[in-house]
Amino acid sequence: MLPAELIRKKRDGGTLDDAEIRAFIAGVTDGTLPDYQQAAMLMAIFFRGLDARELATWADAMTRSGDVINTARVKRPKIDKHSTGGVGDKISIPLAPAVAACGVAVPMVSGRGLGHTGGTLDKLESIPGFRVDLPVEKFAELVDKLGVCLIGQTARIAPADKRLYALRDVTATVESIPLITASILSKKLAEDIDGLVLDVKAGSGAFLPAPKDAQNLARSMVDVCRRMKTRIVAIITDMEQPLGCAIGNALEIRECIAFLNGEAPEDLETVSFALAAQMIRLGGHAKSTREATRMAYEAVSKGAAAEKFRQIIRAHGGDDRVMDNPDLLPQSAFIEEFRSRSPGFVTRCDAKLMGLASNALGAGRHRVDDMIDPAVGILLLKKTGDRVDRGDVLCRIHWNNRERLKKALPMIEQAYEIKPRRRVARPLIHAVLEG
Amino acid sequence: MLPAELIRKKRDGGTLDDAEIRAFIAGVTDGTLPDYQQAAMLMAIFFRGLDARELATWADAMTRSGDVINTARVKRPKIDKHSTGGVGDKISIPLAPAVAACGVAVPMVSGRGLGHTGGTLDKLESIPGFRVDLPVEKFAELVDKLGVCLIGQTARIAPADKRLYALRDVTATVESIPLITASILSKKLAEDIDGLVLDVKAGSGAFLPAPKDAQNLARSMVDVCRRMKTRIVAIITDMEQPLGCAIGNALEIRECIAFLNGEAPEDLETVSFALAAQMIRLGGHAKSTREATRMAYEAVSKGAAAEKFRQIIRAHGGDDRVMDNPDLLPQSAFIEEFRSRSPGFVTRCDAKLMGLASNALGAGRHRVDDMIDPAVGILLLKKTGDRVDRGDVLCRIHWNNRERLKKALPMIEQAYEIKPRRRVARPLIHAVLEG
Repeated sequence: MLPAELIRKKRDGGTLDDAEIRAFIAGVTDGTLPDYQQAAMLMAIFFRGLDARELATWADAMTRSGDVINTARVKRPKIDKHSTGGVGDKISIPLAPAVAACGVAVPMVSGRGLGHTGGTLDKLESIPGFRVDLPVEKFAELVDKLGVCLIGQTARIAPADKRLYALRDVTATVESIPLITASILSKKLAEDIDGLVLDVKAGSGAFLPAPKDAQNLARSMVDVCRRMKTRIVAIITDMEQPLGCAIGNALEIRECIAFLNGEAPEDLETVSFALAAQMIRLGGHAKSTREATRMAYEAVSKGAAAEKFRQIIRAHGGDDRVMDNPDLLPQSAFIEEFRSRSPGFVTRCDAKLMGLASNALGAGRHRVDDMIDPAVGILLLKKTGDRVDRGDVLCRIHWNNRERLKKALPMIEQAYEIKPRRRVARPLIHAVLEG
Repeated sequence: MLPAELIRKKRDGGTLDDAEIRAFIAGVTDGTLPDYQQAAMLMAIFFRGLDARELATWADAMTRSGDVINTARVKRPKIDKHSTGGVGDKISIPLAPAVAACGVAVPMVSGRGLGHTGGTLDKLESIPGFRVDLPVEKFAELVDKLGVCLIGQTARIAPADKRLYALRDVTATVESIPLITASILSKKLAEDIDGLVLDVKAGSGAFLPAPKDAQNLARSMVDVCRRMKTRIVAIITDMEQPLGCAIGNALEIRECIAFLNGEAPEDLETVSFALAAQMIRLGGHAKSTREATRMAYEAVSKGAAAEKFRQIIRAHGGDDRVMDNPDLLPQSAFIEEFRSRSPGFVTRCDAKLMGLASNALGAGRHRVDDMIDPAVGILLLKKTGDRVDRGDVLCRIHWNNRERLKKALPMIEQAYEIKPRRRVARPLIHAVLEG
């Protein structure tokens, strides 16, 4: 069928058959399908959607457009976690060692920060010596030996997704639940996993802020995974304010180390253990979520998770002395205290604005090839619901460049809202969906 | 504003402001806007539409992307007719001289056939020597001197429309009422006309077969022209079966000559005079449609229209002896009679299938650069509503190539339907809308 006919079919609300979808993705992969036809199809899908069968085929075709990582040597169940991205979302870093310490293998291919959200790889690289660009063979070896490895996406993982994603970015077709579903899945399926725990963020700092959209994405992922016989649990968690207290790469690693050493902000702990428990349960190492939660908790409290993280750091060429001495992490030259001008309660600590402020300081990128400053960021001393007096420090801004600080300050100012009365708190965990 | 933000705005149902539209069309014209962003915008417009203000600006921007023909020297009112295209639709050819003979100037920029529909230029070129590629200066001179000229679109008329049209063709965004409206208008406004009569076809052979779509297009054109202060009358006419009896270039010219000499199939006459009358009225040469109709009728019956057409032929380098001796027109080597297998009434003589059959014989193009055979085509002896006996000739197929005949026959077979009882006739003129 001609590409224009395929586009017309989708445009008019039809469903594409498997051969049509595979032909389309093949054309994307080998570049024979002009990008204007790709763009028209993406916009038609934005309006018309893809059903679970189309989605499963679409994701599978994108996965097969590149290499599937061979982790056949790993005999343990392989479960990954994926987050739709947020501000202060450093969960992968304590989570992966905690779950691995419980006997479940975690083959984790992570991303970098872009826009207002941070990226696991950038955070890990703030650990002196830590390398995320391990070869694929080394990845499989570490998943087998350590039970965990964290690397970046290679050019050979789902190249069709990479092309389509770049095109979506410039054609206003990013915010499409089916296209997001296929994009996430295509990359995760390339890890050859047995199950997936998906953390769908909802709230100001989320990729899809509206709870309804988060719900739809979670539902879409669960539906497709069911069809593909991949076990999945999707948890919708809150991203109205940053997760934990640290925003910025080295600051977040410091918070992760504290977590693994037994000291973590409550929200970070709650969400991390909820995700870890599902991974352990999906991996078959616990019969119930309750049992799995206890196992994850013990892995942290008894030090097994911290020990696993030391091993990870060493395996990736990093300096594991940071575990005992976090001051070895990059530190900013200056710290500015940001204080409350009025007494009352924090009624908002906006995740997106805080993410943008941290990026303005240099913690993130505006363009893919921007350099990041690992030391800068924001440490929240007060978050939503906290009582403050006039003059109390709301947060500490770790900065290196005055121009950048000037850009960040108004965003932080705008992110905080202090009111005389407390507002009803949002739940940390909105919903749990299982395939 | 970034192009992706413009696309997003339209995608989400917003309206684009004038500066945004002009920037978009400027990017199309100078090629700085990547075609994938153009394609995404076109698909977003397919779903979200453009309102009358957006459309007026869009069409005006496309007109200004190229040259506006300077016909300032023409002091008479300039009125053009545009048809959305059909099968056997040769109306422009007798209409233009008839209207010009009534004192209204007709600066007509026509198209070529593509798909199942024929094109005025191809038909005119079947007259020996007739040239449609006159320079723009000559065009203005003839409109002034003769009151009429028929040329083809030049590369300098609405180039933005040309680019977008080519893109729409391969991205399944052709069938969009606002995009069709803007495309027609952008070219017609480049003729610097005072008014436009639009013939919107409805039925199987039409570009938009559904009467509702034809109605919407007519309404859209009228709304935009009102906003642009261009006088317009839109007439929705039937294209369920071919117009007149001749399909194919020289055959249609022969029918036009017969018309100008006083002998025409009734449907061709009815629709032609309806359109001519509106042009004469819009041109201010008659106070009522009734008076205008009488003028048009007299221009034909008294020979003024035929004399005007002789002048046109000569001015375009053609051999005007065809007016007295149509046998000078190209003729096919063979004629095949297609007969009815059963007695009854013709209940269908499908315009689209007949158009495709005629093209299969060689009268039309499959690709823009195909050569056409001016001599071939179909002469309908029976049309919808006619009574036939078994063995009656339904139509005569004028052919030159046996392979092509073999391709055409099944389509003609399928186009005709003979039933024991007559069906209720469709009206020839469905509606008249005025701006």
